[in-house]
Amino acid sequence: MQYQFSDNISTLKPSAIREMLKYAAGKNVIPFSAGNPSPEAFPIEKIAEIAADILKNNPIAALQYGISEGYAPLRELLKRYLQEEKGMGGETDEILIVTGAQQGMELVTKVFCNAGDTVICEDPSFIGSLNAFRSHGLHLAGVPMQADGMDMEALEATLQNGTRIRFIYTIPNFQNPSGATMSLEKRKNLYALAKQYDVLILEDDPYGDLRYFGESIPCIKSMDTDGRVFYVGSFSKTLSPGLRVGYLLAPADTLAQLTVAKQVVDVHTPVLTQMIVYEFMTRYDFSAHLETLRGIYKRKLSLMLDNLERHVGDRLQYVVPQGGLFVYCKLPAGKSTQDFCQLCLQNGVAVVPGATFSANPGAVSTYFRINFSTPTDEQLAQGVAILGKLL
Amino acid sequence: MQYQFSDNISTLKPSAIREMLKYAAGKNVIPFSAGNPSPEAFPIEKIAEIAADILKNNPIAALQYGISEGYAPLRELLKRYLQEEKGMGGETDEILIVTGAQQGMELVTKVFCNAGDTVICEDPSFIGSLNAFRSHGLHLAGVPMQADGMDMEALEATLQNGTRIRFIYTIPNFQNPSGATMSLEKRKNLYALAKQYDVLILEDDPYGDLRYFGESIPCIKSMDTDGRVFYVGSFSKTLSPGLRVGYLLAPADTLAQLTVAKQVVDVHTPVLTQMIVYEFMTRYDFSAHLETLRGIYKRKLSLMLDNLERHVGDRLQYVVPQGGLFVYCKLPAGKSTQDFCQLCLQNGVAVVPGATFSANPGAVSTYFRINFSTPTDEQLAQGVAILGKLL
Repeated sequence: MQYQFSDNISTLKPSAIREMLKYAAGKNVIPFSAGNPSPEAFPIEKIAEIAADILKNNPIAALQYGISEGYAPLRELLKRYLQEEKGMGGETDEILIVTGAQQGMELVTKVFCNAGDTVICEDPSFIGSLNAFRSHGLHLAGVPMQADGMDMEALEATLQNGTRIRFIYTIPNFQNPSGATMSLEKRKNLYALAKQYDVLILEDDPYGDLRYFGESIPCIKSMDTDGRVFYVGSFSKTLSPGLRVGYLLAPADTLAQLTVAKQVVDVHTPVLTQMIVYEFMTRYDFSAHLETLRGIYKRKLSLMLDNLERHVGDRLQYVVPQGGLFVYCKLPAGKSTQDFCQLCLQNGVAVVPGATFSANPGAVSTYFRINFSTPTDEQLAQGVAILGKLL
Repeated sequence: MQYQFSDNISTLKPSAIREMLKYAAGKNVIPFSAGNPSPEAFPIEKIAEIAADILKNNPIAALQYGISEGYAPLRELLKRYLQEEKGMGGETDEILIVTGAQQGMELVTKVFCNAGDTVICEDPSFIGSLNAFRSHGLHLAGVPMQADGMDMEALEATLQNGTRIRFIYTIPNFQNPSGATMSLEKRKNLYALAKQYDVLILEDDPYGDLRYFGESIPCIKSMDTDGRVFYVGSFSKTLSPGLRVGYLLAPADTLAQLTVAKQVVDVHTPVLTQMIVYEFMTRYDFSAHLETLRGIYKRKLSLMLDNLERHVGDRLQYVVPQGGLFVYCKLPAGKSTQDFCQLCLQNGVAVVPGATFSANPGAVSTYFRINFSTPTDEQLAQGVAILGKLL
């Protein structure tokens, strides 16, 4: 039969990255396209031990229905942790556990946006979030990225001229894909502008704990005095993406609505995976674990940078990111990124064309994104050498 | 600050059942309101053994990102299983793994419906699904339930007179809350009507394997010759709801759109929980496991029926369900269900008022729903005795 799909879904393309991953899966392709944690970063034995203990000592809690807000001990732990470690949240905020950070974007959108509303986002930005917004029929107003975050003049102009703007979506730390980190001044400025124009802020921070260089900068949520900021955190990069456990730190006055939305999308996040995260954070020194991860990824980033210097030199422009998992590279003037990415794939290296991340589907980009956490050391060297040859 | 919630979320109330569960959680209340599996139904040791094996032998697969369609071995297994055991699906259908069956309703709605469209549902019906439809701005057209399923004349009139009808939502087996099972004739009739009026069917079958009396009746999906039926299955009642693993058997031509929708809502269902389900179905005799469950629940249903006969007699009307987890009871004429349910709660028994399940939020119902899988044997006897006294 002929299917008639919804307007919102009809506008969406499958994620280019996930499609590329599928394409690469069966073949011998060097995966510079993914954002997967390095397998060596998984604390496998600890998770195995924890899972065994849970299913031995507390199996019914793990297997029975849970409440939509999330596993209570994990919610309490996170609330305390974020307050102590990042100066965020407090009596006026609550934690909602989500099935991966992606669901945080989905729920905030579902709870606050009507079709036809506008969301301001960094341009380029994370395709998964942009597609979540599009899937609710929202208009995306992209604000150009600079080395220290959003262009603030462009942001203010957008706020001034836009209509029905519901929130500003930002990834302040080691942004995906640009790698840029928003300066403290811009964070304060962004918060002040959101207040002035009375819009919300959706702060997405999957990479915040993966800083390899420089001093950490306070999250925008830590400046939130009037319940304007929704902070989305994730264990996908710091523990395991397969477990799909993330959280939303949200103003308490919105928890009822977020919980209702959570009920209709998946009732609750699996309990076993929530308990694994809780036990991991409780039994082990989470700060020390993060320090180990930073060691792993800093080494891999250095390896990629060394290889870029050796094989590519100045034929690509890129800013060294202070953290995160990506290097965003600019092709020499006159080169087509789409063609170049195709050529890379034919030569066994998967990279992601910059246009994928654009707020404007028709945009042309001279950038492509490469990832250093997924490939092995050998693949890193080999892949960058191939890029160098192709350039 | 003042929050402005989306139109769709503003119309939703928190699930009365889940709120009641929360209320009951801290107190000594007999839980006739839940739909939880009996703790004795969980194959705890087997799941513990499986989880240990997965995290020992295949940890990276369990902890790394997976693909949005779901864990490939589980998808293949389910495709074969549904074909062999229930005569459903085939070359023209595909499996999408979802984070609990609830997500199946959410995704089909997201993929096929625009705000303002109409969905036909049984009235009363499962509140979680009705709220998922409402959260997309859909109109619900309720069709009255009869002892053998939807009133077919009312269904046809609704199809004739309705506009922008996208699908018919049905729970043909041991419907929640009514307990009614749709006859084979009505299933055929419903499919024919859907074809005639060119609408889709969303067939929700969480209880299908829990039949205690009578002969099993083919699913509507097994009659689907033109890719019209979306079948949602669940492991929540047959293995564990806490794992949140369900599946959608959908026409292959719609898989791309369903997958895009899945990507934006939660990227993929946790891999560990999918692997646990796969290993359970592969290592053990799943039919024998279901037979054990039926034994457990048939005994509990009988216990509830015995107690109803002893303590309540003919002061309540109810039809003995052929399966599932609920008995739907009708109060004597002139009694207010809302008042009665309140009175029950004050006397330590949580039951769910029928109005909760209505397609029409303002509806008055003379029914309430009681569950026999969650309470212990002692609670069953004690709770029904209290109901008897209050009547």
